[in-house]
Amino acid sequence: MSGTSPAGPAVVTGGAGAIGSNLVRSLLARGREVRVIDDLSSGRRAHLPAADGSRLTFVQANVLEPSGYESALRGAHEVWHLAANSDIQRGTADPRIDFDNGAAATFRLLEACRRADVPRFLFSSSSAVYGRASVLPTPESYGPLQPESMYGAGKLAAEGLSAAYAHSYGLSVYLYRFANIIGSGMTHGILYDLFEKLKRDPTRLPVLGDGRQAKSYLRTEECVAGMLFAADRAREPVNLFNLGTRDRTSVREIAEKVVAAHGGGARIEYAGGERGWVGDVPQAQLAIDKIVALGWSPSTSSGGAVDRTIAEMRAARSGST
Amino acid sequence: MSGTSPAGPAVVTGGAGAIGSNLVRSLLARGREVRVIDDLSSGRRAHLPAADGSRLTFVQANVLEPSGYESALRGAHEVWHLAANSDIQRGTADPRIDFDNGAAATFRLLEACRRADVPRFLFSSSSAVYGRASVLPTPESYGPLQPESMYGAGKLAAEGLSAAYAHSYGLSVYLYRFANIIGSGMTHGILYDLFEKLKRDPTRLPVLGDGRQAKSYLRTEECVAGMLFAADRAREPVNLFNLGTRDRTSVREIAEKVVAAHGGGARIEYAGGERGWVGDVPQAQLAIDKIVALGWSPSTSSGGAVDRTIAEMRAARSGST
Repeated sequence: MSGTSPAGPAVVTGGAGAIGSNLVRSLLARGREVRVIDDLSSGRRAHLPAADGSRLTFVQANVLEPSGYESALRGAHEVWHLAANSDIQRGTADPRIDFDNGAAATFRLLEACRRADVPRFLFSSSSAVYGRASVLPTPESYGPLQPESMYGAGKLAAEGLSAAYAHSYGLSVYLYRFANIIGSGMTHGILYDLFEKLKRDPTRLPVLGDGRQAKSYLRTEECVAGMLFAADRAREPVNLFNLGTRDRTSVREIAEKVVAAHGGGARIEYAGGERGWVGDVPQAQLAIDKIVALGWSPSTSSGGAVDRTIAEMRAARSGST
Repeated sequence: MSGTSPAGPAVVTGGAGAIGSNLVRSLLARGREVRVIDDLSSGRRAHLPAADGSRLTFVQANVLEPSGYESALRGAHEVWHLAANSDIQRGTADPRIDFDNGAAATFRLLEACRRADVPRFLFSSSSAVYGRASVLPTPESYGPLQPESMYGAGKLAAEGLSAAYAHSYGLSVYLYRFANIIGSGMTHGILYDLFEKLKRDPTRLPVLGDGRQAKSYLRTEECVAGMLFAADRAREPVNLFNLGTRDRTSVREIAEKVVAAHGGGARIEYAGGERGWVGDVPQAQLAIDKIVALGWSPSTSSGGAVDRTIAEMRAARSGST
């Protein structure tokens, strides 16, 4: 079985998003039947191959409303729960967004899985659950978990609920704490934001914070590969893995690379301050020893992931700018 | 200021419960104005002194419905959030109970506090957030937090939300992780259950599990004293403290003490199995070094707390049995 997955249908919430659609393609490539649940609030139908009515099914529904997707859970071997609000700052402006889309949506989905007897549940958590960790790189065993943002609080709530379902109802659970995930198809995040800013004004690049914030950046396809690797091999009731790279890249480095990719003419203007926004964690790096010990490690550094993503974004935009 | 509290009104949710009413009396004894919010689903009006219209106010409302109590938050200096489902097994039978009363109620209360500009929020969390910890006694820094029960998941969600409110909106937060709290006025818990069983049939005492489950038991008044002590002195954005004793008492010891208090005639019948029920954590003991370092420690051991509570319950029931 090692390296291969069971043959039952896989459900992917948020399957039309940047990470979800990559996962969907990987599952299809493994010969799986895939059912996507996405409300298209930030995902895009165009991220997915055409639903041919046999191996790929698309259900347009919000995870908060199980009546819209319960039938898609029937007979499923596993649910990959990737749907979420992906805009941390928006969640700070309106805390209901992350409570609803992080905590409440996950609870309703877990309940729907229980009713449908789905045996496995795999969840995209985040380094945001660690808050400002006093240990860097931060291992899975780090505590106490005190998120800075509502986004992180929603992820932590969802992790705890998943663990309780594992222990109380026998669901097999996988929790992945993501570093910053970057790649093509992103509709948010630092690279997307910086490119958008230069599109509006190619002469100056305003940057949040003092530029010294430094985090790990992992490519989408590596993130998906890591998730699948652990799902194939780990067999605890609750399987928790950090997913990231072994290094950090500063906002300053990223801004300079984006400006260089744009021809180097823009002036970088730092807003100042230690953190980029309320709820931001200025220094973040996950310890990935646990998944490395299982046999998987990322092939690209944070800097390499940024370089590759900038090149892709530049290529994709070369027609439009 | 050390040892004394600010003079503004204190709000206590669950203030008619066994722990809440003890806290209310302590706050009143400090000269505070106290506003109790309780839906009387498990709390009892009789636990509280008469609301005299000046220093003690009683609002019958459910924390899930802020419209019923928002006016009570106006001008409050702090909110003590103790309202919760206290029946862990009931939460396993219907997971909605702890999601609603743990996670959702806390979110709505935090939002109401934010709207009302309440500066301090103090929350009764639980050792249940640790799940089956691999480290005993378990320190506040233990991770990963993987609750066994929905009760624990609700508490963990509420902790994370509180931390995010502290960091995102400037609320000053106190999180207390309780051991098993026992004392007079309890309407649930092991001692209450065992006494009720002997009342129904004085010849036999059925006990959940194999009797080897062992946990820490802290007296209600000590729990309240520890909370107030930390609230008076700790000044971080998020102040997290375990509250328990330095020892454990087994279910077997407790059952034997209860039978002895009843005259010794009952036969103890163990159901068997490592844990008492689905979601139970058979071995639990909190490390209390952090609050001890602040200057407070419990005066009673777990065994002493059990003895005293049995004596009180026996005295209270001597008229009725």
